[in-house]
Amino acid sequence: MSAPAIDLDTARRGLASQPFAVLLGTRVAAVEAGRAVLEVDVRPDLLQQNGFVHGGVLAYLADNALTFAAGTLVGPDVLTAGLTISYLRPAAGAVLRADAVAEHATARQVLSRCDIVAVAEDGTERVVAAAQGTVAVRR
Amino acid sequence: MSAPAIDLDTARRGLASQPFAVLLGTRVAAVEAGRAVLEVDVRPDLLQQNGFVHGGVLAYLADNALTFAAGTLVGPDVLTAGLTISYLRPAAGAVLRADAVAEHATARQVLSRCDIVAVAEDGTERVVAAAQGTVAVRR
Amino acid sequence: MSAPAIDLDTARRGLASQPFAVLLGTRVAAVEAGRAVLEVDVRPDLLQQNGFVHGGVLAYLADNALTFAAGTLVGPDVLTAGLTISYLRPAAGAVLRADAVAEHATARQVLSRCDIVAVAEDGTERVVAAAQGTVAVRR
Amino acid sequence: MSAPAIDLDTARRGLASQPFAVLLGTRVAAVEAGRAVLEVDVRPDLLQQNGFVHGGVLAYLADNALTFAAGTLVGPDVLTAGLTISYLRPAAGAVLRADAVAEHATARQVLSRCDIVAVAEDGTERVVAAAQGTVAVRR
Repeated sequence: MSAPAIDLDTARRGLASQPFAVLLGTRVAAVEAGRAVLEVDVRPDLLQQNGFVHGGVLAYLADNALTFAAGTLVGPDVLTAGLTISYLRPAAGAVLRADAVAEHATARQVLSRCDIVAVAEDGTERVVAAAQGTVAVRR
Repeated sequence: MSAPAIDLDTARRGLASQPFAVLLGTRVAAVEAGRAVLEVDVRPDLLQQNGFVHGGVLAYLADNALTFAAGTLVGPDVLTAGLTISYLRPAAGAVLRADAVAEHATARQVLSRCDIVAVAEDGTERVVAAAQGTVAVRR
Repeated sequence: MSAPAIDLDTARRGLASQPFAVLLGTRVAAVEAGRAVLEVDVRPDLLQQNGFVHGGVLAYLADNALTFAAGTLVGPDVLTAGLTISYLRPAAGAVLRADAVAEHATARQVLSRCDIVAVAEDGTERVVAAAQGTVAVRR
Repeated sequence: MSAPAIDLDTARRGLASQPFAVLLGTRVAAVEAGRAVLEVDVRPDLLQQNGFVHGGVLAYLADNALTFAAGTLVGPDVLTAGLTISYLRPAAGAVLRADAVAEHATARQVLSRCDIVAVAEDGTERVVAAAQGTVAVRR
C-alpha cells in the first residue's frame, strides 16, 4: 500500500483548522491511503427533538469524512462538490464514526463513499447512514 | 392557498426543540403551505479552514429546511429519509438562508427541494447550494 | 427573457444525434432559455415486469432532460456529471414528459432540476419522479 | 455465507420479465447473497452523440443492478425508491458491467451500492460510474 497523501498528524491539524469541526468535537481516528475515519462523541447539543442525533450532524460528518478520504489520495487541496446521504435508522449511542473510502480518483475528482456507524456504550455498532460524494481536486 | 399544516409559531417551537438547531442559531424566517425558510447567522465557529461556511453547515441546513417544508404539508411527524446536496460556490456572507419547497406529496413521503442562499452584509444574495430530499411520513 | 443558447431546431438535431435517445423515441417538446422539455411515448418495450415504465427509462429521461436544460444556458458542449432521482409513484400512461429547468449556472457547471410527469390517455398528469443533476461545462 | 433470496435462475427469469431490460440486452452475470452483477453489451444504439455509451444507459443499468442486489437479500418484491449516480469517465468498450452490493438492510429498505465498469475488447476494465440507491421492500 502506498503512503497516504496526508498522514494522521496532517489530517488532525487539518481538522483542527476547521472551526465547525472543532465546535462539534470531531476527531480523526485513522487515515490511510484511500480511507479516513472521523468520530464525534454524541452530546446533548447534537440531538434533535426525539433524543436522536440530528440528521444534520450525520450529513456534516459524512461531508467531512468523504473529503478527508479523498485527501488521503490527492492531498489536502480538495473541496466537496456534492454528496448524497441516506438515513437508515435513528442514530443513538455514545460515538458516531464515519468510515470513508476514496474509491475512484481521476485527475479532476475523487468519488468517496462513507458509512456512518453509531457505537453504543457497550460497543455495539449499527450503521445509521450511508453516503456517496464527489470531491473536486483544486488546481 | 390552504393553511399550512404547521404555522409559524409551531414551526418555531419545533425548531427550538432541536438542540442542534439551537446550537447553530437556526431560526424559522417563514412558513406557508409547502414552503419553509430557515436562516442561520454566519459565525466564526461555523466556518472551515479557508474562512468559508463549512459544507457541513449547508448540508445540515438543507436537511432541516427540507423536512420543515414537508411538515407544512403533512404535519410535524416526519423524518428525512435522505438528501442530495450540490455545492455551487464557496459560501460567505452574513446570513445563510435555506428556502425549501415541498413539491410532491404522497401518502408515504414528500419530495422537497431547497436552495441555500448566502446573503452578504449589503444584502447581495448568491445561491451557494441546491438540495433535494425525500421526507418520510410517519404513521 | 434572453434567447436560449440552443434553439428548438438545434436541440432536435442534437437529440437525433444520440442513438440511444432515438432508440427510445425521445423528442424535444420545447426549449427556452433555462428550460427543456423532452417526451417519450410509453411503449411495451419500455416497461418492467409489472407493466409500469421501467425506472431505468425515467432515469435515462431525467439525465437527458437535465443536460438539455443546461445546454439552453451554456450551449451544447456539456456533459452530465451526476444526478439523483427519486421515484414517487409507479409510472403508467401514454406519454412521459420530463420538464427540466437549469436553475443555477457558474462558469464550470449548471445545476438542473427535473420533474417527470406521466400523462394518461385522457390527459391526466401525475408527477412520477423528481431529479436533480449537475452538468459540467466543457472548455 | 447464507443462500441468496433469489438464485441465478430466478434472477434471470426476473430480468427476462422486464421488457426494457430485454430491449437493452441486459443479462445477469452473477448473483450471491447481497450481490448482483448485470452486464450489457455495448451496441451502436446505446451510444450518445460522441460515440460513448449514453449516460442514460449507465443510469438504467445502475437502477436495475441496485434493485437486484437488494433482491438477493430480501426477495424479488422490491422497488427502487431512488438513486444517485456519479459519472466518472466517458464510457466506451465492449461490455458494461454493473457490480452491485446490498450493504445494509432494514425491514423497510435496503441500501445498495454499485460500480459500473467498462470492459474493453482486450479485457481492460475501467470504472465509469458509481451509484448508491435505496430499495423499498414491499409488504
